[in-house]
Amino acid sequence: MAAEADDTLAPEAPPLGLDEPTPPPVFRDEEDDGVSRAFVEAVRGTLEAQDAEGLRALVGDLHESDFGDLLEILFQEERIALFVLYGPDLDFTALTEVDETIRLAILRELPTELVVEGMRELEIDDAVYILEDLEDEEKFEILQKLPAMERAALQRSLDLPEDAAGRRMQTQFIAVPPFWTVGQTIDFMRESQDLPDTFYEIYVVDPAVRLKGSVSLDKILRTQRPKRIAEIMNPAEHAILATDTQEEAARVFTRYNLVSAAVVDAAGRMVGVITVDDIVDVLEEEADADIKALGGVKADEELSDSVWYITRSRFTWLFVNLLTAILASLVIGFFADALEQMVALAVLMPIVASMGGNAGTQTMTVAVRALGTRQLGRANAMRIVRREMIVGLLNGVAFAVVMGIIAAIWFDLPTLGPVIGLALVITLVSAALGGIVIPLLLDRFGVDPAVSSGPFVTTVTDVVGFFAFLGIASLWFGI
Amino acid sequence: MAAEADDTLAPEAPPLGLDEPTPPPVFRDEEDDGVSRAFVEAVRGTLEAQDAEGLRALVGDLHESDFGDLLEILFQEERIALFVLYGPDLDFTALTEVDETIRLAILRELPTELVVEGMRELEIDDAVYILEDLEDEEKFEILQKLPAMERAALQRSLDLPEDAAGRRMQTQFIAVPPFWTVGQTIDFMRESQDLPDTFYEIYVVDPAVRLKGSVSLDKILRTQRPKRIAEIMNPAEHAILATDTQEEAARVFTRYNLVSAAVVDAAGRMVGVITVDDIVDVLEEEADADIKALGGVKADEELSDSVWYITRSRFTWLFVNLLTAILASLVIGFFADALEQMVALAVLMPIVASMGGNAGTQTMTVAVRALGTRQLGRANAMRIVRREMIVGLLNGVAFAVVMGIIAAIWFDLPTLGPVIGLALVITLVSAALGGIVIPLLLDRFGVDPAVSSGPFVTTVTDVVGFFAFLGIASLWFGI
Repeated sequence: MAAEADDTLAPEAPPLGLDEPTPPPVFRDEEDDGVSRAFVEAVRGTLEAQDAEGLRALVGDLHESDFGDLLEILFQEERIALFVLYGPDLDFTALTEVDETIRLAILRELPTELVVEGMRELEIDDAVYILEDLEDEEKFEILQKLPAMERAALQRSLDLPEDAAGRRMQTQFIAVPPFWTVGQTIDFMRESQDLPDTFYEIYVVDPAVRLKGSVSLDKILRTQRPKRIAEIMNPAEHAILATDTQEEAARVFTRYNLVSAAVVDAAGRMVGVITVDDIVDVLEEEADADIKALGGVKADEELSDSVWYITRSRFTWLFVNLLTAILASLVIGFFADALEQMVALAVLMPIVASMGGNAGTQTMTVAVRALGTRQLGRANAMRIVRREMIVGLLNGVAFAVVMGIIAAIWFDLPTLGPVIGLALVITLVSAALGGIVIPLLLDRFGVDPAVSSGPFVTTVTDVVGFFAFLGIASLWFGI
Repeated sequence: MAAEADDTLAPEAPPLGLDEPTPPPVFRDEEDDGVSRAFVEAVRGTLEAQDAEGLRALVGDLHESDFGDLLEILFQEERIALFVLYGPDLDFTALTEVDETIRLAILRELPTELVVEGMRELEIDDAVYILEDLEDEEKFEILQKLPAMERAALQRSLDLPEDAAGRRMQTQFIAVPPFWTVGQTIDFMRESQDLPDTFYEIYVVDPAVRLKGSVSLDKILRTQRPKRIAEIMNPAEHAILATDTQEEAARVFTRYNLVSAAVVDAAGRMVGVITVDDIVDVLEEEADADIKALGGVKADEELSDSVWYITRSRFTWLFVNLLTAILASLVIGFFADALEQMVALAVLMPIVASMGGNAGTQTMTVAVRALGTRQLGRANAMRIVRREMIVGLLNGVAFAVVMGIIAAIWFDLPTLGPVIGLALVITLVSAALGGIVIPLLLDRFGVDPAVSSGPFVTTVTDVVGFFAFLGIASLWFGI
């Protein structure tokens, strides 16, 4: 994929392996884009041989993301062995790239001194990301061994609410007064030692550090040195409040195509910078959460979770589903006599409920996604409700005809046709109505529609489906 | 959300509205974050009065994204009236921010001359995005009226495959030879007229324009002027091939936290730059497609689509579902005698199938998402299959106990307990197996598992659920 991946991803040959003239293994498997088996085996070899030099030669130049992938493949005891053998100058950023379960396990097993050393090299947003899921005592143990300045900065971020945008900010940034010239600003950057690792714009603040505006680096580079910053800055339009949620921050970034944005406190003072790479992570987590929620899986479930954790986590949703299924069965039980007299009803009834369930899921999926991306709001809610009901009606009629004919022929009973047909129309219209109104109502009441719509919609489609079909049949056939 | 949104988003007062001293309406509704009714009405007022100055004062300074939101709220005839009244210097970038249906409708109704004028001001990636969904003749009509240079550049992008990364690239970029100094490079940027709108790094190429490396702007700004570019450049590691898919490009961006990346052709020559804002759109589209596919909705369905289009689009999926439902009913029909003799089976059987369906969906959701994000691959597939089956077994046993007791009490028939219990264990294990193996197999054969897994998994859970429950009951009760 990357044009020169083959040459560049393969690390240098281990300097000590002079008896081994073969080149080091390629990092990524061409086939499935995962870490190659040969590379993993080479790392295992250095761990077994306690060959620190060989290990550094292999993994020292890996990007944090590749390093994270490698950690996920290794066994837990190998991960610990790797951290210990490599020593404290290992890039702890890799820990931001692994599943939470793995991260916590590594942090808990490593000597605290090693963790503290590793944390000191990190940008503050990465350090917060790594620390935030630990228990309070564990956090405290690490924090108290950090220098006072770093501890205070970390603590400030950790004191923000769990999903606050401020937790994803770097606290190093370049801020200049508006009366500086472009030349002064460039000279300042050339001379400063304590600059952020990478940055895309500089910020303009007043003496009280209140945000006044920003200037992108390309603007600085194409402006003549004597020009004043105030003349070329953009007004402070899209600043993020530290206490805004990460989702709100992501919405601002995507809406205005930002690459970085200033973070301000309630008084408008600049406290940090959020960059788009963190926002991309937020967006991926959000999409992940929505997809999982709609599938009945908790958002925090990860591939590396234990069987026992996953079993309990999935049990909850299945239990809710059991209750709605029992409710539907109670409806069926109400028509036990009819079922006994006419077994065709028992054979056909799951079709009606299943069609309703699927049509309801279609509408619900569209509604939940549109609510999540803010495309569905008050301005168009009624229009979409109307549209979904018409779609439900049209497809209801279509499947009424198809299934009516099939049922009539299957059981050689022409009157079954209109019975199942009418039931399908009623069920598909109800499914459409439930699929759109339930997410809208949940959203209005501040409940996440992605998580909670499913069981309600299924209940509606099951109950309506069975009741409509068996009820109409009872009336029609007088049973 | 944006700290000073209230002051900054409200546009200037219309200069001609001297008889109207009230301030212009705020753009966004605080409540639901959509376009405010007052703003829409103000725009409608200028359209009715044919007040071009008033319209420009209202919408002229809107960000393209806000402008797009406004267009989506207006009626189609109002959109056209707005474009015509505003004239050719309207920012056509707004068209990249509206649904495809709306974009096509606007392009088709506007005079071609106006579209051509608007297109000329666009960056090439935006122009391609706007043109690419038009029919070939429509594209041709617009392209042939563009100047030769722009037409050629557009045509090159449009000739790439539909989901090629190259379609999202800008073709303006700054490339310098490696022997230039930082000072030379800065002077070059200060003097050039034809620079990209915004950029985050410059590229280093050889005389044949083959990509050699890149330098971020902050690196340039903090380096002394006499230093050579070759000494500070990063090697060309994460270049994107123009023919890579957009999904592959997005994977590189997220993996290596990139903000921009060079695009090269098959010979390694640099042809453009992709920036992260386009990648964010790709990621959102991808998540959108996965969520919709899992819910049985086609990826291209948009809120603005017509009732008729949506009805047909949803019909297909529902029809596939009808076939699997009929298959399940055939299984039920096989046990018609048993159902006639024991109506409790008819009442309880949907519970077994429903639990299976939900458990299968849970596993399938996790599998599809993990395949999409490349977390699930050959290295861990067997481990995950094993894990899912154990989870299915454990929850199967749990619900066997719960539902066994309920069924025995409900129908006052203790032997019903083990029958439904055993059926639940079999169904939930099969659901887990189907939920993981089906997506893995589809992925192996190059079929998108998000789109196609659902019907297969449902078929497995329905057929196994009904067959296991009714089959075991027949054997047990000898009916």
